[in-house]
Amino acid sequence: MNQTVNVVKIGGNIINDPRALETVLDHFSNLDGPKILIHGGGKLATELASKLGVPQTMVQGRRVTDEETLRIAIMVYGGWINKSIVAGLQSRGVQAVGVSGADLDLIRAVKRNPVPVDYGYVGDITGVNAPALTTLLRSGTTPVFAPLSHDGKGTLLNTNADTIAYEVAKSLATTFQVRLLFTFEKEGVLLDVSDDGSLVKELNPVRYAELREQGKITDGMIPKLDNAFRAIQAGVNEVILGKAEVLPRLIERSTGTRLYHDV
Amino acid sequence: MNQTVNVVKIGGNIINDPRALETVLDHFSNLDGPKILIHGGGKLATELASKLGVPQTMVQGRRVTDEETLRIAIMVYGGWINKSIVAGLQSRGVQAVGVSGADLDLIRAVKRNPVPVDYGYVGDITGVNAPALTTLLRSGTTPVFAPLSHDGKGTLLNTNADTIAYEVAKSLATTFQVRLLFTFEKEGVLLDVSDDGSLVKELNPVRYAELREQGKITDGMIPKLDNAFRAIQAGVNEVILGKAEVLPRLIERSTGTRLYHDV
Repeated sequence: MNQTVNVVKIGGNIINDPRALETVLDHFSNLDGPKILIHGGGKLATELASKLGVPQTMVQGRRVTDEETLRIAIMVYGGWINKSIVAGLQSRGVQAVGVSGADLDLIRAVKRNPVPVDYGYVGDITGVNAPALTTLLRSGTTPVFAPLSHDGKGTLLNTNADTIAYEVAKSLATTFQVRLLFTFEKEGVLLDVSDDGSLVKELNPVRYAELREQGKITDGMIPKLDNAFRAIQAGVNEVILGKAEVLPRLIERSTGTRLYHDV
Repeated sequence: MNQTVNVVKIGGNIINDPRALETVLDHFSNLDGPKILIHGGGKLATELASKLGVPQTMVQGRRVTDEETLRIAIMVYGGWINKSIVAGLQSRGVQAVGVSGADLDLIRAVKRNPVPVDYGYVGDITGVNAPALTTLLRSGTTPVFAPLSHDGKGTLLNTNADTIAYEVAKSLATTFQVRLLFTFEKEGVLLDVSDDGSLVKELNPVRYAELREQGKITDGMIPKLDNAFRAIQAGVNEVILGKAEVLPRLIERSTGTRLYHDV
């Protein structure tokens, strides 16, 4: 059996909470075997844009990445957040390396089609450099991804961290057993967002479709779950959603939502 | 004979001039064999600090790195400048990876003693991870260093780019032939800073001491040349100072200042 690699995506809620982040880095450091961390942006980029007087345009609930906003994303995601996490992991004995998609040509993308909506410098991923990633993992290195890709022509592109996590996990599925953990502010998929007791412990595509029809899964959860189910379909062995602060419990399946396919 | 590695430090004048930077990246991409780029900060960090209203304190001509200034350094040096250079090199077919001292534990440092002057989050280098660096170079990877080190306890530290270049070059001198190029805004060491024709083509420690006594080498050139001569003493094979825009001519010795030791 192939070695298991843990691909852990941590969201903005953790980035915004230094104490919670310390806890998560403790847990992550303790994971055996090859592992990858992917972080989102949190509110720091928005705060910086506001301080610098760079207006943030939203279209259909999504931020438009103009040139100034891209620069802020590169500074905050690729610089401050990424290097702080790397330094934190190194202090815990993890041989981490912080990367954007440009580093080692790890994640190529194309600038999203400006029709029908021009989101600016946003990347749609076209490929992951799985050989380079595998070499890093096999040498005991832990990549820490900022949510940035590049177009191979010198331009960095803002890229959704959930999508990076999905694409990275998928690219490794032929070489490793892959466990993909999408962490966020909830215990997992909840039937009632205000009640942790309403946790859905397991979810398959049929049940997911039902819950969407019933309006019980909405908004931000839909792209997250779409990515998660695509990962399963693409050969990722296990996909779990839940709180990063309880990472070991997610892995041992005592909480969180586990996705599966009926065979 | 061992393979030659080129260690190229580029300064703020290039970072501040996008067109000159493109030229330098063209030249750097064309260098054969293993190579390392180290970049300084330029004026972008000062500009960002000013926009954000973070006061910059100078003591004896040196900037004090308080917590806010460190964050700006990490964003601008470790994020914006570093990733932009990496994306630019990748577009030229160079398998670059952008790193701070925390990444792969490449550069350890201690926070500088606050007595007699407290410069804040500034690192004095204690060691370079030469094995990790050698592995990168041997695999065809080109490290691009931001001027940041770490203390191994989770804190990043602002660190002089010339010193990083010197320490990196020194650490490789037992494994490779090392050519260290300190580039800046002048043709090399000039007897008259306003006259490129006064270029000193070769310099040894005795002549250096003479020129200092005569007041012909002053200010910023002194720490640069001290670092450069230390590199020669530490086994670096060749140290050249000059303009980054003419990198190939520096290497073929048709311009620039070459340092040497009398044996």
